Amino acid sequence: MPFLCRHLLSSRGEASQTALAQEIIKSYQAMNSAQRLRFFEMLCRDFSPEASVILRAAAEYERSPSTQTLAALSEAVEPLRQELIRRINTAPGGTQTLVALREDLLDLSSQGKEFEALDSDLRHLFRSWFNRGFLRLERISWQTSALILEKLIRYESVHEISGWPDLRRRLEADRRCFAFFHPALDSEPIIFVEVALSNELTGDLGPVLDLNAPVLAVQKADTAIFYSINNCLKGLRNIPFGNFLIKQVVAEIAGELPNIKNYATLSPLPRFARALRETDNENGFTPERIARILGDYAHHLTAAAGVRDLVDALFRLLNHPLAHRDVLAAPLGRLALAYLTKVRRDGKLYDPVALFHLSNGARLERINAFGNLRPYGLEASFGVTANYSYMPAELEENHERFVRGGQIRVSRGLFHENKVVAAVWQATRELVQSQ
Amino acid sequence: MPFLCRHLLSSRGEASQTALAQEIIKSYQAMNSAQRLRFFEMLCRDFSPEASVILRAAAEYERSPSTQTLAALSEAVEPLRQELIRRINTAPGGTQTLVALREDLLDLSSQGKEFEALDSDLRHLFRSWFNRGFLRLERISWQTSALILEKLIRYESVHEISGWPDLRRRLEADRRCFAFFHPALDSEPIIFVEVALSNELTGDLGPVLDLNAPVLAVQKADTAIFYSINNCLKGLRNIPFGNFLIKQVVAEIAGELPNIKNYATLSPLPRFARALRETDNENGFTPERIARILGDYAHHLTAAAGVRDLVDALFRLLNHPLAHRDVLAAPLGRLALAYLTKVRRDGKLYDPVALFHLSNGARLERINAFGNLRPYGLEASFGVTANYSYMPAELEENHERFVRGGQIRVSRGLFHENKVVAAVWQATRELVQSQ
Amino acid sequence: MPFLCRHLLSSRGEASQTALAQEIIKSYQAMNSAQRLRFFEMLCRDFSPEASVILRAAAEYERSPSTQTLAALSEAVEPLRQELIRRINTAPGGTQTLVALREDLLDLSSQGKEFEALDSDLRHLFRSWFNRGFLRLERISWQTSALILEKLIRYESVHEISGWPDLRRRLEADRRCFAFFHPALDSEPIIFVEVALSNELTGDLGPVLDLNAPVLAVQKADTAIFYSINNCLKGLRNIPFGNFLIKQVVAEIAGELPNIKNYATLSPLPRFARALRETDNENGFTPERIARILGDYAHHLTAAAGVRDLVDALFRLLNHPLAHRDVLAAPLGRLALAYLTKVRRDGKLYDPVALFHLSNGARLERINAFGNLRPYGLEASFGVTANYSYMPAELEENHERFVRGGQIRVSRGLFHENKVVAAVWQATRELVQSQ
Amino acid sequence: MPFLCRHLLSSRGEASQTALAQEIIKSYQAMNSAQRLRFFEMLCRDFSPEASVILRAAAEYERSPSTQTLAALSEAVEPLRQELIRRINTAPGGTQTLVALREDLLDLSSQGKEFEALDSDLRHLFRSWFNRGFLRLERISWQTSALILEKLIRYESVHEISGWPDLRRRLEADRRCFAFFHPALDSEPIIFVEVALSNELTGDLGPVLDLNAPVLAVQKADTAIFYSINNCLKGLRNIPFGNFLIKQVVAEIAGELPNIKNYATLSPLPRFARALRETDNENGFTPERIARILGDYAHHLTAAAGVRDLVDALFRLLNHPLAHRDVLAAPLGRLALAYLTKVRRDGKLYDPVALFHLSNGARLERINAFGNLRPYGLEASFGVTANYSYMPAELEENHERFVRGGQIRVSRGLFHENKVVAAVWQATRELVQSQ
Repeated sequence: MPFLCRHLLSSRGEASQTALAQEIIKSYQAMNSAQRLRFFEMLCRDFSPEASVILRAAAEYERSPSTQTLAALSEAVEPLRQELIRRINTAPGGTQTLVALREDLLDLSSQGKEFEALDSDLRHLFRSWFNRGFLRLERISWQTSALILEKLIRYESVHEISGWPDLRRRLEADRRCFAFFHPALDSEPIIFVEVALSNELTGDLGPVLDLNAPVLAVQKADTAIFYSINNCLKGLRNIPFGNFLIKQVVAEIAGELPNIKNYATLSPLPRFARALRETDNENGFTPERIARILGDYAHHLTAAAGVRDLVDALFRLLNHPLAHRDVLAAPLGRLALAYLTKVRRDGKLYDPVALFHLSNGARLERINAFGNLRPYGLEASFGVTANYSYMPAELEENHERFVRGGQIRVSRGLFHENKVVAAVWQATRELVQSQ
Repeated sequence: MPFLCRHLLSSRGEASQTALAQEIIKSYQAMNSAQRLRFFEMLCRDFSPEASVILRAAAEYERSPSTQTLAALSEAVEPLRQELIRRINTAPGGTQTLVALREDLLDLSSQGKEFEALDSDLRHLFRSWFNRGFLRLERISWQTSALILEKLIRYESVHEISGWPDLRRRLEADRRCFAFFHPALDSEPIIFVEVALSNELTGDLGPVLDLNAPVLAVQKADTAIFYSINNCLKGLRNIPFGNFLIKQVVAEIAGELPNIKNYATLSPLPRFARALRETDNENGFTPERIARILGDYAHHLTAAAGVRDLVDALFRLLNHPLAHRDVLAAPLGRLALAYLTKVRRDGKLYDPVALFHLSNGARLERINAFGNLRPYGLEASFGVTANYSYMPAELEENHERFVRGGQIRVSRGLFHENKVVAAVWQATRELVQSQ
Repeated sequence: MPFLCRHLLSSRGEASQTALAQEIIKSYQAMNSAQRLRFFEMLCRDFSPEASVILRAAAEYERSPSTQTLAALSEAVEPLRQELIRRINTAPGGTQTLVALREDLLDLSSQGKEFEALDSDLRHLFRSWFNRGFLRLERISWQTSALILEKLIRYESVHEISGWPDLRRRLEADRRCFAFFHPALDSEPIIFVEVALSNELTGDLGPVLDLNAPVLAVQKADTAIFYSINNCLKGLRNIPFGNFLIKQVVAEIAGELPNIKNYATLSPLPRFARALRETDNENGFTPERIARILGDYAHHLTAAAGVRDLVDALFRLLNHPLAHRDVLAAPLGRLALAYLTKVRRDGKLYDPVALFHLSNGARLERINAFGNLRPYGLEASFGVTANYSYMPAELEENHERFVRGGQIRVSRGLFHENKVVAAVWQATRELVQSQ
Repeated sequence: MPFLCRHLLSSRGEASQTALAQEIIKSYQAMNSAQRLRFFEMLCRDFSPEASVILRAAAEYERSPSTQTLAALSEAVEPLRQELIRRINTAPGGTQTLVALREDLLDLSSQGKEFEALDSDLRHLFRSWFNRGFLRLERISWQTSALILEKLIRYESVHEISGWPDLRRRLEADRRCFAFFHPALDSEPIIFVEVALSNELTGDLGPVLDLNAPVLAVQKADTAIFYSINNCLKGLRNIPFGNFLIKQVVAEIAGELPNIKNYATLSPLPRFARALRETDNENGFTPERIARILGDYAHHLTAAAGVRDLVDALFRLLNHPLAHRDVLAAPLGRLALAYLTKVRRDGKLYDPVALFHLSNGARLERINAFGNLRPYGLEASFGVTANYSYMPAELEENHERFVRGGQIRVSRGLFHENKVVAAVWQATRELVQSQ
């Protein structure tokens, strides 16, 4: 392979680029895991820019900065790997192979290997190649080919599709499903979103996922609920599409169905339970903080007065949340709000889904205790769901406030509750710091 | 516009990238020529990398070369313009606008302005975006939409298509036409090639371009003649496609028509007449060289013995080439061979078409005096045409020999003639050098 | 061929129907005109029902009328030819061949031969096969394949298309063109209609046919003018489509362009000049009638008082109609109205176009003197054009009144004029009858 | 409805045919079963031809037989219903409704009602409309839309498709599936056939229907096995397609896969068990005949010597066929041969599947005891399957011999066995007749 790669980059190889690229692809596909490891190591080692060349070009640029010397430096800095990857891409099936290769790379990286140099080149090129301008939005329906539909079943990881009847219900007249496709990846959705049309906003996943739910007449719907969004190809991780997809689908639905006035997600809180249980995180959900956040609701949970007792009581109830819905609903809602809007020790939000939507410019609309009663919903988020609203008119400003100042836009309904939570968080933070 | 561009690059603008990009596109399209000039100047000036940042990153890299410091240097070197261009491309019609923008840029550049920095960024991105892997080969036929066919008429610049009947003949059963399309450029061929099927190789354009030529039964054809290849979009100049197109079309035809054994071009010599007339180029067609090349043929042209007389006689005859076909055919052929295979003062071939095919790995198969009797053929190349053969098996080696050592592969038929010419060229070179 | 046809109808032939049908098609296509003649004669003679069988079945039915005896009679009456034609149609290209065969048949019939039996069977089957339910309406645009567009040029016989630029103008943004296609006739329009969008009704063909007329912004249009409707295949003569096409196109345009309020034709009067000149038709445009119709306008045409003088003066002026536009406009309009609405000796309308639109339920909207100044317009109809309005709400009633009682609906604008003409026609009729 | 139907046929209705037809369709769809019954009765009663008119036309024809009088008789005989049906078909969805209507009609007819007159008209028109020339063969694959694939699952009635994974296996690389579609029936297969490619002929359905059977590499296959053919629409019963479908699919596969040399079905014997058990049918499987057919095999089944004992023993074993495979295989094969090739009292074959394939010109290739071990296979045919070979070269002759003389072509392998069976049948027939 090193030879093939050099050959492809050589002047000789130029005349038969496509054939050579095909050979490399075939060889790669035949490799086992150990061989791929060595291949990645080789690519990281042998096709990097040369320090001496870079330093010479930098010196030249320093002496006389100009378009030319800058161009030379630019060239010196760019790894040969990038050109190699571009040439591999000239073969039929090239893009597909390269995306699969990055998946392998990420898998091996997560096993402790380091291929940042190669991954960085792949990411750089994928960002350019999978530019929004080259993606094609397509509606997915029961008219779509089984080859593609089967992939939805495979790639749906938020709310598992239990089989063809489940999929069929999700493509009925009161649903919409859209995916991005890339021209070089045939019959391969890149990312897709599932939308339920309803006649008001709901936080309850039950009817949305119910195979036997009656089909709503479309003209009665006023709300589009984005209840599942899935990236399909691991090899495209960190290449951003979701932002574009949601906004474009909002536009598509607005064009098709003028009655739809509200666009909101119905989202999981994937790390809520975990975050709540990390009571030894001193910047997070300490027992003290939990107790303060629960505030008035505390006495519903236990007669005991101590912080420790309260937290113990809470977690005891949470072991059987459905048996204690009445008691738990309000406290869970407030805890979830804190979880969704407050940051961890590292300054980031706990919740990746919240981070995604808030940085898209959405606002936190509603929190729904017991919105998802499925086992995975109870386990990961004690059954809580959240709605994020996409209001076209405020997306840009929300986005900027969030990105610049960390400000989170919440709905009127959550406004007061949010102030309570914020006050607690602030107060306990000072407590911590003063210690 | 500077504001819009900064806005698009800002974190605030991220949330409404597509909308902002659309606005920029609209503004650009509304600009007149002077405004575009200022816009390009602004892009060259304001979105370049900053020298201080580059130098700091270079120093850091020098102190401690690593993947991280290299990445930082890489980022410092990349102009913001590239990201700006990528973001403009997220809008519908983005790619089309950027290609048109580069056309404007090249037009203004040819008027003495200098926008190399911007052009270099566009070229860099276009090479990546218009990678062979993203192009779609399509057969063009009389079944194709008039919208696309009309563009063939517009873009054909080698052998002008005189109208729809001419086009129709070129798409008959004994012809093939293929184009590359890019998914982001709807109904817009990028490059196309016209092929005539014939029952032996011909150097004569007459029947190929004759509207009333009888249609050959496909099963009788053994040769595919590529008689015209055209790049369609000036904005994609220097983004290479032709090489890929010809090779892929060879493969397509081989798949469809197993009887076809020969693949060759029927090409013009676009600067032959001009090169021959530059007799004051002391490394080129000096009178002395012309005289020596003509060798034995000289006495057919004139009874006079002097070099000057001979050259004068030659050009007199060439004023009315059709009147002197018998006398001129052999001398013209030999001069054309010299023109096609010998280099100019600057070390490059005279003929861009020869350069293209030879560096693709083709071989020079035949030279045909009076192969193109149309006015533009007589004017530019005294009616001479050339055939370059594409033999799949030898492309790679020919290419390498040509690129590395400047060796040109010629057919058996031209072998002896080529030695004669080479000897003359060598001899006169020594003469020049010894002076 | 007689053998092949018998074979195809035999039980033996059943197993290889498609192959046999293909053979018959091939044989037919290879026939010259004389052979086809004999073939038609054979089909008329040899594949007719047998009189004795019919009479026996009729007798049986008479004795005991029942579903069974009726079915038997029905079978006896149906010529074997019909089954033969159905079986020929099972081959690829069968329908196309049968339509072409009927064209040949009509051509030969017009030369005095009589093939009514065969033609009647073809007509019967074509009416069933080319049922509206099997036709597909398609918009024709510049995006359509050249193969189909070229056929529009060939088949347009109302207002000749002078070439591709003319066609292109007729497919611009302010035009619509629709055709019916049949699934068994690939790339073959059956009938098509050309529509111009304009911002009010016009009777003037000049701008409609002008290649250089500016393109109207669609949102400014309030009227759709059907200015040309053409049957494409002679072999489908008398199979009615036009009625369906116009109504469906009205619906299509109404769906696409809600601003369009008026739907009207801009039609020729193909036999106006001829009808006017037949002054010896005593139930038609006798000199007496012409004179009375002209009424008040007469003295503009000539100072002479006699009927004969007046008619002579009229035709003198009509020899150079453009030189006398002012004087001729009003008289021509009134004569055209008489021509369009009054019947000939045989009780039919003079004008086949008026007959078509009026029996579709359209109303006569306007008559435009000098609406068509092209040579063929001046020659056939002294330059007059007519608009027929298609008002969805009144189509059914207009149609019935016309079909049942011969009543013609005219617009308010023509109402008074029509009474004048009707009075004259009535008066002169009585005159004739009383003679 | 009677009014609507009369209106549609009236001259008034002509102008708004499509709209009226749509109204009729809507009314029909809204009807309940009792209303449909009355509707059918009305159609049978009110839109039949009038006896007096027919008789007058017949008399006229008798007096002077000519093209004209024949045409008049023809017209008198044709029920108005046919024209009514044709006009209903002009509406969008017309064909679909008419096919559904015939399904309702057949359902109601099977409940003892008699609508032969209406059914005969529908059949007549459907035969014309669903002519082979108007059907489109399409390959069905995993690329096909789920909407269509789901219909295969619904319509497969020979070997039930247990769900999507089962369907997916039947569309793998070593399978082919083709369907006929009609242009007026969108997304609605008319008939489809499932084909397994294998590397020799097999009579064993096990691997063919096994979801987990390994996928054969196509280049290793030499045989195409048609193992299921299904008509989809009950409303098209008795409109023949299957014959055309098999032959066309043979041609398709031959074109795609030159390695395939054998084309044969793997067919059920749907009434074998029933036929065998009807021992009181004195022209059929009488105990006497069964005993003689079993011949040498008898002593494997029982030691007893009497006819009655033997037959009892046979049926006892057949109650648990899988427990007695060794003993039953040969006797079952011979009995199946008798069942497949011998006629019932009414002179027809017992087996409708055999009748279909033999009259298509196929030959009986093999009989496989225990070829179908699924419950329905054991129940209906004691597990026996048959292969019918489609040899293009002999189809026509086989067909004719079968249709004319009732001769059945069997393979060499069955030749001797067939003589044994024929002799027995003949001998026992004489026995019966002599009684």
